[in-house]
Formats: sequence, structure tokens, C-alpha cells
Amino acid sequence: MPHLVIQYSENIEPRIDMKQLCDQLGDTICASDMFPKGGVRVRAYPAAAYSIADQHPQNAFIDLVLRIGAGRTQDQKRNFGQALIDQVSEICQDLLAEPHFALSLEIIEIDPDLSWKVNTIHPRLKSNS
Amino acid sequence: MPHLVIQYSENIEPRIDMKQLCDQLGDTICASDMFPKGGVRVRAYPAAAYSIADQHPQNAFIDLVLRIGAGRTQDQKRNFGQALIDQVSEICQDLLAEPHFALSLEIIEIDPDLSWKVNTIHPRLKSNS
Amino acid sequence: MPHLVIQYSENIEPRIDMKQLCDQLGDTICASDMFPKGGVRVRAYPAAAYSIADQHPQNAFIDLVLRIGAGRTQDQKRNFGQALIDQVSEICQDLLAEPHFALSLEIIEIDPDLSWKVNTIHPRLKSNS
Repeated sequence: MPHLVIQYSENIEPRIDMKQLCDQLGDTICASDMFPKGGVRVRAYPAAAYSIADQHPQNAFIDLVLRIGAGRTQDQKRNFGQALIDQVSEICQDLLAEPHFALSLEIIEIDPDLSWKVNTIHPRLKSNS
Repeated sequence: MPHLVIQYSENIEPRIDMKQLCDQLGDTICASDMFPKGGVRVRAYPAAAYSIADQHPQNAFIDLVLRIGAGRTQDQKRNFGQALIDQVSEICQDLLAEPHFALSLEIIEIDPDLSWKVNTIHPRLKSNS
Repeated sequence: MPHLVIQYSENIEPRIDMKQLCDQLGDTICASDMFPKGGVRVRAYPAAAYSIADQHPQNAFIDLVLRIGAGRTQDQKRNFGQALIDQVSEICQDLLAEPHFALSLEIIEIDPDLSWKVNTIHPRLKSNS
């Protein structure tokens, strides 16, 4: 944890570098000091088939779902979500300047009692620090 | 909001036009008057690797997860879910006539306190109406 | 139900046979006698764009989310989750021997009041048994 899943309409690929977006959001999550760096997993999934709003061919979307472990306060979660949507809005400013773009973010907490993890990145990062 | 995510086994692609299915379900969501048109995002993701039930090669699935904002009554949600599964059942009637198909739908509510949206489609649709 | 969704970084494809992993986990779910065989749907989605931890190029992940129907006890869910993560750990032992791998599993219960299913596999499996 945390997991950030980005779903988006394929028509924005010429305009947004998705690998770069993943890296930028990963950097932000790591820099927040709220989450263990070794657990950060950001990934992006283009949808080839989709239907948005009035089905205008220029309509596009990016939807982010951040799944985090328990333990942060409501204020921490609210502030971090706001920071994340602000960052993505900045990166997508050209898309947001046009009347065809829907951006969204949701934060969901993972039930600690019904989740499991095995992570070999944590020890490497700890031994490096 | 709302978000409708369709996951399906790739083996139904010759039989169901996924772009058309996205448009048809998008139309239904828009026509329900329960959701703002500008927020409707339907998308479909084929799974190339999958394993269904007894692993018969003709086994296939479509799984729909509809994430909606808070504010609808339980009855509204129940009725709308029923209408949606009825519509998809109609579209998939050939698949449902064979003993190899699993169709499912779930509705999940998004926490208004931990979700964010920036949408430039809404103002365009409002100015057009 | 149940639904097992596997998300993973594309860089593990040369090392893990995803179709085989789906089948192995499907077999385990079927053999547990906790779930109806005809409802088992395992599927895997590679992420082409991703960012993991310190962004080391060898970093990789597999994230499993198991959505199940209501009706199992907390102990049943805990034990089954543990068995599943143990099995995947065994399959991924080479990846886990290196300091670049993050494996995770979460179990989520589906709301029976807001879910629907139409399944033509169940009757076939029942008539065969």
C-alpha cells in the first residue's frame, strides 16, 4: 500500500504521457511521508471502448482510485486527496481548458483485517537509507 | 460520477460490440435522470488471461461495477440496478441461451468526503440546454 | 461470485505465466468448497504504464482483489486469504527472492442488496454432478 489505479480514455494518450504521470504521482505519494515508499504502486489502464457523457468524440476522462492502508486521519486523507487532484489538474491544464474533460479521484481505505502483503522492496530501501 | 466499469473475457468480443454496449448503457444512465449527464463515464476492459468456473473454453463473463455518488435512495438504486441488468441480459440473450455465461452487476457508493472531481463537460452541456 | 482481479506490472510476464496463475487460483477457489464453482471468475490485467516505489526498473508487483458474496465468517475469510497469499507466494518464489517485488491481496464483500447476477454455468455444472 498504497495503490493508485488510473483509468483513462485512450484518446488522451497523444496529450498526456502516462508513464510520466505515474512517476509524478508516485513521487508525490513518496514525498508525502504518509506512506511507506516501498509500498507505492501506481498504474494506468487505458480503456479502448468507452462512452462519456453526450458521447462527443473529444470527450475524455481520467479517473483515479487511491487505495490506502488504515491509520491516517480524515484530515490527512482530505488534504492529501486535494493535493493529488490539484497536481493532476495542473498536469492536465490543456485538457481542462477544453469543454470535454472529466477528472476524478476517490480514496478508499483497505480493511487491515482482510488484506495481506509480502514485500521485498521495503528491506532494500531500508538498508539503503 | 457515475462510473461504470465493465470487465469481460476477451472471448466474447466476436459476439458483443463493446463500444456499442458502452454507448447503450451510457444512454440508459443519462436517460434515468438520476445522474448528471456530464459525469457519465462507461468503459470496458477485456481480460486476455482469465479462468472461469470449470475452465470450459467457451465459458465467458461480463462483470459490471457501477460507482455512483451519494444521494439516491436504496429503492432508486435497487430499481436502477435491476433495469441495467435487464438491459444487459437482453443484449446478451444469445450468450445467455448457452450454458457458459456469467453476468454480474454491483452498485457501490462513492464516499463524498473522500472524492474529488473537476469536470469541464458539465458547463458545456448546461449552456447547450 | 467470487471475482478475483489480478493487476500486475507487465515486466513480470516473462517470469509468471498469467493464464496458468489464473487457472491455479481458480482451482483453489473451487476446491475451497466456500464458493459455488459456476461463479468463479479470475482475470488478470497487465499495466503497461506504472511506477513502483523507488522506480527501480526491476520493481514489479502483483495485486489481487477478491470480491466475494456475503455469508462467510470472518475466520473463513481470514483463513482463505492466508491460503491464497501463501499459494501466490509459492508460485512467485523467484520474484520474492529478489529485492524488487511487492505482492498484495485484499478481500472485499459484495453488498447482497445492490448486486445482481445471471448465470447459465451453474445449471450445467449441477446437471453434470
